[in-house]
Amino acid sequence: MATGPTIRDVAARAGTSTAVVSYVLNDGPRPVAPATRARVLAAVAELGYRRNNLARALRANRTGTLGLVVPDLAKPFFAELTRAIEDAAFARGLRLLVGSAHFDADREDEQLRALLDARVDAAFLVPSQDPTSSITLLRRARIPHALVHRTHPDTVCIAGDDVSAGRQAAEHLLQHGHRYIALLGVGRAEDPVSLRSRGASATLTEHDRPLPPWSMLTCPFPNLRDDAYRATLDLLTTHPQITAICATTDEHAVGALRAATEIGRRIGDDLALVSIDGTELAAYLTPALTAVTAPFDTLGADAVDTVLNPSGAGPTVRQHPLTLTVRRSCGCHATHDGHRKS
Amino acid sequence: MATGPTIRDVAARAGTSTAVVSYVLNDGPRPVAPATRARVLAAVAELGYRRNNLARALRANRTGTLGLVVPDLAKPFFAELTRAIEDAAFARGLRLLVGSAHFDADREDEQLRALLDARVDAAFLVPSQDPTSSITLLRRARIPHALVHRTHPDTVCIAGDDVSAGRQAAEHLLQHGHRYIALLGVGRAEDPVSLRSRGASATLTEHDRPLPPWSMLTCPFPNLRDDAYRATLDLLTTHPQITAICATTDEHAVGALRAATEIGRRIGDDLALVSIDGTELAAYLTPALTAVTAPFDTLGADAVDTVLNPSGAGPTVRQHPLTLTVRRSCGCHATHDGHRKS
Repeated sequence: MATGPTIRDVAARAGTSTAVVSYVLNDGPRPVAPATRARVLAAVAELGYRRNNLARALRANRTGTLGLVVPDLAKPFFAELTRAIEDAAFARGLRLLVGSAHFDADREDEQLRALLDARVDAAFLVPSQDPTSSITLLRRARIPHALVHRTHPDTVCIAGDDVSAGRQAAEHLLQHGHRYIALLGVGRAEDPVSLRSRGASATLTEHDRPLPPWSMLTCPFPNLRDDAYRATLDLLTTHPQITAICATTDEHAVGALRAATEIGRRIGDDLALVSIDGTELAAYLTPALTAVTAPFDTLGADAVDTVLNPSGAGPTVRQHPLTLTVRRSCGCHATHDGHRKS
Repeated sequence: MATGPTIRDVAARAGTSTAVVSYVLNDGPRPVAPATRARVLAAVAELGYRRNNLARALRANRTGTLGLVVPDLAKPFFAELTRAIEDAAFARGLRLLVGSAHFDADREDEQLRALLDARVDAAFLVPSQDPTSSITLLRRARIPHALVHRTHPDTVCIAGDDVSAGRQAAEHLLQHGHRYIALLGVGRAEDPVSLRSRGASATLTEHDRPLPPWSMLTCPFPNLRDDAYRATLDLLTTHPQITAICATTDEHAVGALRAATEIGRRIGDDLALVSIDGTELAAYLTPALTAVTAPFDTLGADAVDTVLNPSGAGPTVRQHPLTLTVRRSCGCHATHDGHRKS
């Protein structure tokens, strides 16, 4: 997405932090030693760095702070998405304050109000449930805002292409020749878990492997690992013919992995597992998870650029592709290199 | 720590959320349906709930918002600690905004300034490095504040008893009869990793099992998993006589687990691993991690109560014990129940 050198490139060349570069370019809010200032300005000149004037204009009249509310900061997916948005904000000279909603609509509202009271210049929301009332709140506040990792017809949305992610996961399991596949994480609304489930299910049906109802497991959100663990334990006990599991999030996969291990099924050997999310954790589980991986950095950068430069064209949905990262849990026996591509 | 019924108890009995209870008790900021209000007031009367008047007084004149800066929200330990502080704040009718410093002193400063600009009533800091300049910033802002998960002589600190945690980890490995023990995560300053290392090392020395220098591995902070992975791979290859590893954080343990698995050592069988932190992840790794577990909820509650009720007695350090949770990685072959005690 980036064009030309970024503030990070300037910081790296000047041997300082992006914050110090920002202080030099904004003439504050903190003093910078003359020698450091000279190095920064030299790096700006050498790289031909052009400041983001929109960010500057925003900052001139405002707080220079963006806000984000996520369902639960302690879940790795939301934690990594938060870090990506925060990195994108800092790279553009802006700060990010974050609130967590604990999958509770009242708390989501309360956290959004805390951010609005803090006079954030723009806000992002990863909604816990139906975001309609939160969108109303943001619209009344008259600040730029966007939904992230969720689509809704009434506003600007930055999301992964979750239907396609589900298709990729199912296709990979089909390529391995599996006939008895279970789907972990069927959702109810238009949330990413539902969309991923829908994509996986459609692909399996198209390949004459429709999912029987007993193989499609629903897990409520706040305790995904536990629920997925119990659901998988039950499923593998009652339907031992299952040879593959498509997990719609890494949280589901972690629960499934534990259940399979506990009853003596060997993931990557006599039971294939493909996940969707691709958090850092996926690379570090044993075996490492094959996962359709979310473009965290792209989502973060697009979200920040969207609120810095609102099009005024009304509600839009921008979807970014997820990409398959093959590790060991699918049975590919790839080398254990295991890292998410950044 | 809690005495008497909490706002959560009231919410549970009234069948509503803590936010709604707070609206009733504070007469706003949002309206509550008469029937719900009646249920909340009945629950208050039945339970004999007494409001935290300090929280109320704070809120009357201020924003009702607390602030927290952590080194990296995408690390499970900080994410779970953040959730605990946030839960404690909400249970007391207050909100929490969070910033992440990316292990960068400049960014830590910048995030603290963002919180101060947002006029938070009090602030918590889990410092990325030496917190001296951040403490100065907080002191100048004249708001109650506390360090969490770190001690420093100049301010109020809420921390785990990390030296004792290190001792517990080492003692457990000694009870298993290990002679060749490696220590993963030696730090340099007074950070928790150092204190844990110091405790483990002292215990081993006292039991005539001093750690040879080559068995004490240092890993820099931002990429703990990778560094611990590489360090363990190297150590187990060059010193195959090692039969036990004491990891000073779950991040170190995750890296060690991956390295051991990769070279065919079986954790919990021919290689023992004990960790310190006890994040939710510990229960879900394969094998599940035996871990000296941080009292997240106690730290969160004590941190919030401390800033709501500053003693004025000057700098203090309050330390809370960590407790050993036995799972499989130490070789105890305990049942795989695996959950962190709350």
